Amino acid sequence: MEVNKHISGQFNTELETIRSSVLAMGGMVEQQLSNALEAIHSQDIELARNIVETDLKVNAMEIAIDEECTRIIAKRQPAASDLRLILMISKTVTDLERMGDVADKLARMVVKNAGRTQPPLVSLDSMGRLAIKMLHDALDAFARMDVEAAVRLYHEDDNIDRQYESIIRELMTYMMEDPRTIPQVLDVLWAARSIERIGDRCQHISDYIIYCVKGKDVRHTKIEDVNSLG
Amino acid sequence: MEVNKHISGQFNTELETIRSSVLAMGGMVEQQLSNALEAIHSQDIELARNIVETDLKVNAMEIAIDEECTRIIAKRQPAASDLRLILMISKTVTDLERMGDVADKLARMVVKNAGRTQPPLVSLDSMGRLAIKMLHDALDAFARMDVEAAVRLYHEDDNIDRQYESIIRELMTYMMEDPRTIPQVLDVLWAARSIERIGDRCQHISDYIIYCVKGKDVRHTKIEDVNSLG
Repeated sequence: MEVNKHISGQFNTELETIRSSVLAMGGMVEQQLSNALEAIHSQDIELARNIVETDLKVNAMEIAIDEECTRIIAKRQPAASDLRLILMISKTVTDLERMGDVADKLARMVVKNAGRTQPPLVSLDSMGRLAIKMLHDALDAFARMDVEAAVRLYHEDDNIDRQYESIIRELMTYMMEDPRTIPQVLDVLWAARSIERIGDRCQHISDYIIYCVKGKDVRHTKIEDVNSLG
Repeated sequence: MEVNKHISGQFNTELETIRSSVLAMGGMVEQQLSNALEAIHSQDIELARNIVETDLKVNAMEIAIDEECTRIIAKRQPAASDLRLILMISKTVTDLERMGDVADKLARMVVKNAGRTQPPLVSLDSMGRLAIKMLHDALDAFARMDVEAAVRLYHEDDNIDRQYESIIRELMTYMMEDPRTIPQVLDVLWAARSIERIGDRCQHISDYIIYCVKGKDVRHTKIEDVNSLG
């Protein structure tokens, strides 16, 4: 009995440690994205180079957490709910790593385009802030394994999608009015696209949280049906 | 002893079944992508609608296989190499599902643009064939858990990337020469982008195969270092 308690105490510590690692990784990705917006805004090459370097750390964290997940499963042979938690962590870090790649890509764009005239980027910044806010909320929902907060994230993604559509229209007009700007504007288009994808990846994290808590896989479920779970 | 053999025999059957399911799902995605190229080429709305419907089946397969993975881990408590196999399957089906989404997206583009003038799509078709070939080879490598074949996939992706770059340049010229075509050409750009992403996803499958066989996580490893594993 004492031994069991001890083992399960150790196991709980391991689970807590790994959850903290996910939050640390998520916080780092949030900071990377925020720095990337700042680097775009102020055309700060030094900051951009820093982001590219830090992305290697983000990648290393993904692998380390994933290995820890495998190790815990092999060692602890966890049952249903703990197993679901570990599997969802393994998926979550993959999405976080890909969001980190977005910051890396934006930073490389700043380095590549250094010194050239920039197309208007104001609305990109505002969509970027929405995406970072959504990631922050996703990590919050993860920390508290909060299904209601996870469901709310779906609506945040709608806002990002709307801003994205309006940015695309804006940039399209810009290109049509002055076709010489097309190459630069396309870079902004790619940037907008990859920021929009952050919203989708945060939604994946929502799905994992709901799966983990409810034991129900809501990937590919309609929003109304997801709402009824909240 | 007999009992152990029996259990392990059942376990092997379960693993084989789940591997077959992954190959079946992969084959379906391959077909979906091939149909999508055909629907674009011949502007076949009926075929495009079929693809959108079939995507629901692909999504359902992802969830079913993933649930089976969780069930097997909980029931069999597999050790190192079997556990790695099951975890890599769970990641592989996510990438397959996202490749299925590309077919769905291309099909929706055909439906949306029905009856409008199309920009030139020849090179898109040729890049699409390369991507489907790469997926086919990735599934082959998965079926045989063949590390050498997995390493070769990295070079296939280089070819896709090169074609992608040339398509982007071609479309950019097209838009600059006739800015009125920008909205339609942008659709082709998105299509090219999502086909290019198939190559990246096939590379993820390579990484999982290498991880599974060698027990070494090669995500974010330089190509030269991966080659030395082959």
